[in-house]
Amino acid sequence: MATLTVPEPIPSPAEDAESIHKAVHGWGTNEKTLINILAHRNATQRKQIQLAYEELHNESLTKKLESELKGNFEKAVYRWNFEPVEREAVMACIALRKSFNSHVIIEIACVNSPNELLAVKKAYQVKCRRSLEEDVAAHTVGDLRKLLFGLVSTYRYDGEDIDVKLAKSEAKILQEHIKDNELNHDEIIRILGTRSKAQIYATFNSYREEYGTSIEEALAGDSTDEYALALRAAVACIIDPHLYFVEALDAALEKSDEDTLTRIIVLHAEKDLGEIKDKFHKRKNAPLEHAVAKKTSGDYEAFLLALLGD
Amino acid sequence: MATLTVPEPIPSPAEDAESIHKAVHGWGTNEKTLINILAHRNATQRKQIQLAYEELHNESLTKKLESELKGNFEKAVYRWNFEPVEREAVMACIALRKSFNSHVIIEIACVNSPNELLAVKKAYQVKCRRSLEEDVAAHTVGDLRKLLFGLVSTYRYDGEDIDVKLAKSEAKILQEHIKDNELNHDEIIRILGTRSKAQIYATFNSYREEYGTSIEEALAGDSTDEYALALRAAVACIIDPHLYFVEALDAALEKSDEDTLTRIIVLHAEKDLGEIKDKFHKRKNAPLEHAVAKKTSGDYEAFLLALLGD
Repeated sequence: MATLTVPEPIPSPAEDAESIHKAVHGWGTNEKTLINILAHRNATQRKQIQLAYEELHNESLTKKLESELKGNFEKAVYRWNFEPVEREAVMACIALRKSFNSHVIIEIACVNSPNELLAVKKAYQVKCRRSLEEDVAAHTVGDLRKLLFGLVSTYRYDGEDIDVKLAKSEAKILQEHIKDNELNHDEIIRILGTRSKAQIYATFNSYREEYGTSIEEALAGDSTDEYALALRAAVACIIDPHLYFVEALDAALEKSDEDTLTRIIVLHAEKDLGEIKDKFHKRKNAPLEHAVAKKTSGDYEAFLLALLGD
Repeated sequence: MATLTVPEPIPSPAEDAESIHKAVHGWGTNEKTLINILAHRNATQRKQIQLAYEELHNESLTKKLESELKGNFEKAVYRWNFEPVEREAVMACIALRKSFNSHVIIEIACVNSPNELLAVKKAYQVKCRRSLEEDVAAHTVGDLRKLLFGLVSTYRYDGEDIDVKLAKSEAKILQEHIKDNELNHDEIIRILGTRSKAQIYATFNSYREEYGTSIEEALAGDSTDEYALALRAAVACIIDPHLYFVEALDAALEKSDEDTLTRIIVLHAEKDLGEIKDKFHKRKNAPLEHAVAKKTSGDYEAFLLALLGD
């Protein structure tokens, strides 16, 4: 369930482009107008506005906004203006080449369906002129490389078939290595990195039934080791992506980590931010909008709240 | 250049299906008729014949042929009758689940373009109800797993762009590990498994220029270690697939390895067996057809020679 709201009827792309042109030219910038338009148009409409703007004014709207806006607001608008698949590709590229962030890669690899991940890989190649896999492998080392490469490279089987015997035997493999604190064992990475989501759920269920504890509880701990954190994030993304994003938003608000806050809201406003908001409210006893409003300010706050459907 | 020859004009699929029906029913089987039809129809035509046969006789042609034919001839006809992409998927499945053969996996991963490999992965999932990657990972261990999984999983960048500086630095990485006899080093697997073909060629060229020897010469040796053999095969498949197949055919004929002989001829007859034949003649001073005729016999020989365009 998207939180993006689009007014009815909407102006034509040329009218929107003209309103934006007025808002960013002359003395100062009218951010309110920008937010009113951009935060209330879907991906296709935003693309049409960009094309209309370029045609009418012979300049790139993206570049104009980059030069006129600043700080977290500029970053959020820049990310928002991409088409969804392109946006994930750009975020992966930034997370690998500019400011390393394994969580961006894990989310792309583990939350998307196999065909969605493939679409991101194709967009990555067009945008970044390399494969996502080679950049992941070239910018990481050791156990973290093994895990991230495994997660990102496989074109997983997307069927619902489950092999119950296999689930049981692989739950045992997981349990043995977790018990011995060998979280970096090749077999753990193989199972998480290659099995279908349906098969992994069956394995995790078997784990809970056989060993009386969930895989998440078994992996929990206060280790701040980068590999252990990545492993936990991957498991959380596979088991319950909405809950994973609730916790990630909560931690980002706590730490004033605006990059993560922006990323999750921008990536999900057009998709499933409704479910994430509901779950956040239930788990944290406060609406996500209030929590965001408390920790952000100005145009950045207004833009995020608009995307949150406020 | 395909070696498959199709007569002009060809009978309708229903006429072919009828001729085949007569050839396989009653006393004995008329193998000559089967070869005359099946070895001289392209993938689309063979598919239409199968459909016509099933419609007319309410039985599967594939199953009928399996029950009527035997030995290497039966295996070759069975493999030939698939559509090309489906055939590679079935061969991978047999090579992983029935009779392990890393060369089948290496050829599929390294000879195909990224999109051809993706098509094989999709067909594999339909046929085998798992991903190619999970079967590779589950049926191998250790260094061989790392290598095969790397090769098969990446959706490589297919562009022609080359980073000359990167080629030089990765040639150095390769040289250092090869010199120290660390052929199983993660960095060797990363470079071969993730870089684009164009980038790998540039790296291999840089290797030759800087170190005065080709990567193939550097890797050559009499080791029969499974991993070293697989690494050499992967490098050979990337550098010059036609030459790789010439050597593989030569070795298969030498060892009477009919599975390999059948695989290569059946897989390439509709594609590039012409180039492989030319190169074989030049390298081995004998036409491939003569070499095949010398080592095979009966209907199996006649079928292979028909596919070879003889």
